[in-house]
Amino acid sequence: MRVAVVGAGVSGLAATKCCLDEGLEPTCFEQSQDIGGLWRYTEHIEAGRPSLYLSVISNTSKEMSAFSDFPYPEDFPVFLPNARLLDYLRCYAEHFSLREHIKFGTAVVSIRKHPDFATTGQWNVVTEADGKQASHVFDAVMVCSGNLSEPSLPLHCFPGIEKFRGQYFHSRQYKHPDVFQGKRVLVVGMGNSGVDIAVEASRVASKVTICTRRGAWLLSRVFDHGYPWDMIYNTRLMSLIRNNLPGPLSWGWVNYNINQRFNHENYGLQPEKSCLVREPLLNDDLPSYILTGRVTIKPGVKEFKANSVVFHNCPEEEPIDIVVFCTGYNASFPFLEESVVKVENKHASLYKYVFPTHLQKHTLAVIGLIRPFGAIMPVTEMQARWVTRVFKGLCRLPPQSVMEKEVNEKKKNQVKWFGLSFDEVLKTEWLVYLDTLASFIGAKPSVLGLLCRDPWLALTIFFGPCSPYQYRLRGPGHWEGARQAILTQWDRTLKPTRTRVPAGSSSSFPSLLVVVGFLLLLAAIIFGLQ
Amino acid sequence: MRVAVVGAGVSGLAATKCCLDEGLEPTCFEQSQDIGGLWRYTEHIEAGRPSLYLSVISNTSKEMSAFSDFPYPEDFPVFLPNARLLDYLRCYAEHFSLREHIKFGTAVVSIRKHPDFATTGQWNVVTEADGKQASHVFDAVMVCSGNLSEPSLPLHCFPGIEKFRGQYFHSRQYKHPDVFQGKRVLVVGMGNSGVDIAVEASRVASKVTICTRRGAWLLSRVFDHGYPWDMIYNTRLMSLIRNNLPGPLSWGWVNYNINQRFNHENYGLQPEKSCLVREPLLNDDLPSYILTGRVTIKPGVKEFKANSVVFHNCPEEEPIDIVVFCTGYNASFPFLEESVVKVENKHASLYKYVFPTHLQKHTLAVIGLIRPFGAIMPVTEMQARWVTRVFKGLCRLPPQSVMEKEVNEKKKNQVKWFGLSFDEVLKTEWLVYLDTLASFIGAKPSVLGLLCRDPWLALTIFFGPCSPYQYRLRGPGHWEGARQAILTQWDRTLKPTRTRVPAGSSSSFPSLLVVVGFLLLLAAIIFGLQ
Repeated sequence: MRVAVVGAGVSGLAATKCCLDEGLEPTCFEQSQDIGGLWRYTEHIEAGRPSLYLSVISNTSKEMSAFSDFPYPEDFPVFLPNARLLDYLRCYAEHFSLREHIKFGTAVVSIRKHPDFATTGQWNVVTEADGKQASHVFDAVMVCSGNLSEPSLPLHCFPGIEKFRGQYFHSRQYKHPDVFQGKRVLVVGMGNSGVDIAVEASRVASKVTICTRRGAWLLSRVFDHGYPWDMIYNTRLMSLIRNNLPGPLSWGWVNYNINQRFNHENYGLQPEKSCLVREPLLNDDLPSYILTGRVTIKPGVKEFKANSVVFHNCPEEEPIDIVVFCTGYNASFPFLEESVVKVENKHASLYKYVFPTHLQKHTLAVIGLIRPFGAIMPVTEMQARWVTRVFKGLCRLPPQSVMEKEVNEKKKNQVKWFGLSFDEVLKTEWLVYLDTLASFIGAKPSVLGLLCRDPWLALTIFFGPCSPYQYRLRGPGHWEGARQAILTQWDRTLKPTRTRVPAGSSSSFPSLLVVVGFLLLLAAIIFGLQ
Repeated sequence: MRVAVVGAGVSGLAATKCCLDEGLEPTCFEQSQDIGGLWRYTEHIEAGRPSLYLSVISNTSKEMSAFSDFPYPEDFPVFLPNARLLDYLRCYAEHFSLREHIKFGTAVVSIRKHPDFATTGQWNVVTEADGKQASHVFDAVMVCSGNLSEPSLPLHCFPGIEKFRGQYFHSRQYKHPDVFQGKRVLVVGMGNSGVDIAVEASRVASKVTICTRRGAWLLSRVFDHGYPWDMIYNTRLMSLIRNNLPGPLSWGWVNYNINQRFNHENYGLQPEKSCLVREPLLNDDLPSYILTGRVTIKPGVKEFKANSVVFHNCPEEEPIDIVVFCTGYNASFPFLEESVVKVENKHASLYKYVFPTHLQKHTLAVIGLIRPFGAIMPVTEMQARWVTRVFKGLCRLPPQSVMEKEVNEKKKNQVKWFGLSFDEVLKTEWLVYLDTLASFIGAKPSVLGLLCRDPWLALTIFFGPCSPYQYRLRGPGHWEGARQAILTQWDRTLKPTRTRVPAGSSSSFPSLLVVVGFLLLLAAIIFGLQ
């Protein structure tokens, strides 16, 4: 069975590797000359490719961002500067010999149903390399082209922008802070890049303002007691609590916890509707930059003038020299027909964010078109594992009507939960989503089952971080090293920072884990293990 | 009574102002052409003057760093970049018409006892301006020349440094991070500048390592719930608890609290002897820079080699291109005879850090030679208020033997508490010290007395931050605006960051204060108000 994989970024590499694992024959088409996708920083912006700024650091920790059978080296930092993350992807490609399946410098021009699609599920794929087109027939297609290549710059939402005489650009154009030297900078939009750019700009600019209509909850990579946020937040216990508490209690709990670090209201960040669970931002620097006056938070833009901006509910104009629009990206699949995948308001209606619901044959899947609140690597890998099983006929999808109902339901629900922003619809609860797909292929770990056979492992799985290795303990793709990788996850986390150990001190985490573990066992039983 | 004030930095300005308040005649000699001392950033290093790097931000919040009768404007940021702090000093000098008492471009060359010193307490002061010397007689002298002008660079403590072929310099030489571009940087010593410089360097360097033998506790300006650290830490309640808990309990409490933000052991920062209370560092960035691998912490230097360094307890050499020695400063008073003030091991034996103990007449005082764990402005001002009262004979010092006993006792105690580093001897508990001096001049607020007359003010004083305005409620220098300044301190703190207020939200602090206040009243009574 021959599978076309579009793109050799994180998703494409995972897809190629999973194809090989399942005995499929992948051909990965990568338009640029190297792997890495988003994570390969280039000094110049290339059309159709994502563009990073030099200082990007991963928002998720290395233990949570690993592919499930390939832990990061123990001396890698806990959160990875983009160059180190690319190193990891190179090692992954090397270790599983993925490069020989990738055709570099080859763009996918079109993907169309084969005339026999209804019976064979095959696709005609036209590619272009060195200006020459070639046509291929594939039994299945995995679309791994990402959704961070086409900037969304809705200028019509900003009255007066045509009169503005200063410079403005989309965050995609941003590479170095030099451009802000001595300038008065306005950052529009408070996503992760917006905040990163504002913080960097403030070191050289004369003034930096972020404006945000909606506000946001802000988390720090350095979480409780200094542990990485996702290793504390994305545990089975915490997920169980979050998903089982009644709405208002859950909101109150999130509200309380998130304001422990700093009161969002006092910092001008308070979300507009605080009872709505919004995807939090991740930034370590912003609170101190606000408190020291280096970055100022303002409400949404009301109007631009020639050399200034007016904000909602603020009488005075603010003089501005440069505006950076951090207004996100549009998903787009120029090589696909709208009848296959249709993107509306940044949202593609896909079953479990992967499969178009209405095709006669489920031989096309979209990988990585999801923004869970957790690491993306294990998610794309799990999607690829499931997809390859579906391609092979070992997993079946529900009938079209059931899938469509679920997709529509979800769309409605998420619009409700996340406020009416379609930007948000791609987000979902990370652990629940992983577990769901894992249960489809029989790779979901059974905590109860393990409790008798391997109690220490079971406790670590339940109370500890839900590291991706948990999904290699059993089922297809079972990995011998998984148990060991889980039990040593904290060692690899602490190793790169415990670089100075005064005589007589020792790691305190395991003992803490024991205490917390047994104290919380009761709570776990009450909530009921699955 | 004519008073010579040496230097027009923070201490000199406070001294000049306090002289005027007490009807003395100050003449302030400033060797440079402007006020501000430490806080006046210059691109070039000037001999005999402190030297800042461009990014320095005050470690103490504006409400705690104000002179006691001159609050910061409400729109100033909570922690002040050096230029803003200088703005404040300029306003202060302007408002109290201090400039007319300052002789700029005039260095003090020598201060010697007048032949009639034993009876008059007068001093001969020789100054130099435009290469011409002049001699003056003063009735008293206030030495406000600071202790951050003469770098301490003990190269003999670093074996092999003479073989090192890379570049090295003292932190005093540091202005911009450009010098570190692409280099492997070693920062020796982990004081506040060491950490600031390492963090800045890491944005351009290829690798940054901080080495520290002793380690340190690290606090953040952004403290519990995002309030400024010193407004939470330096309250009468907290000070009472810290100073009345038995030693081990107090250490345990500090240990626990300080590790809440991040476990110091896991970050390589754990102090060598954690039961010793060390002056904490203040830095908002370091933990996340460690967790993302941008800064690495190592033990003390064992030896330098031609192109590398070897650390204690680390087998491998680390290649290094640039070393920054953040090894602090020596106090020095070149214009004074050793018989007047003697500096040994960075320590001058002064009664209450101010008066030489052995002079027949107490007409010479050193202001600002102290490193309390809190803002320096109110401390120098309080010293100056006390000193001027002593000069006028309205306050008396104890007999020489009593003062000497106390100084020696303190020296011994602090050496014990702070480990055997003389660097530390200048530190003392901020609030206790302020209260002591205030009680000398009758300006210490009486919480119990206020409880009946003005209970809300009394509660704010006891549970809230010990802002300097508290010392203007009564006694000499009583200020009408003090009560109002105290009751509005949180307004001025929140104003510059609450720049975006979504509809329907309101300040939550006052209500919190009420709840906490009444809950803790019991505790207060148990501990016993003074």
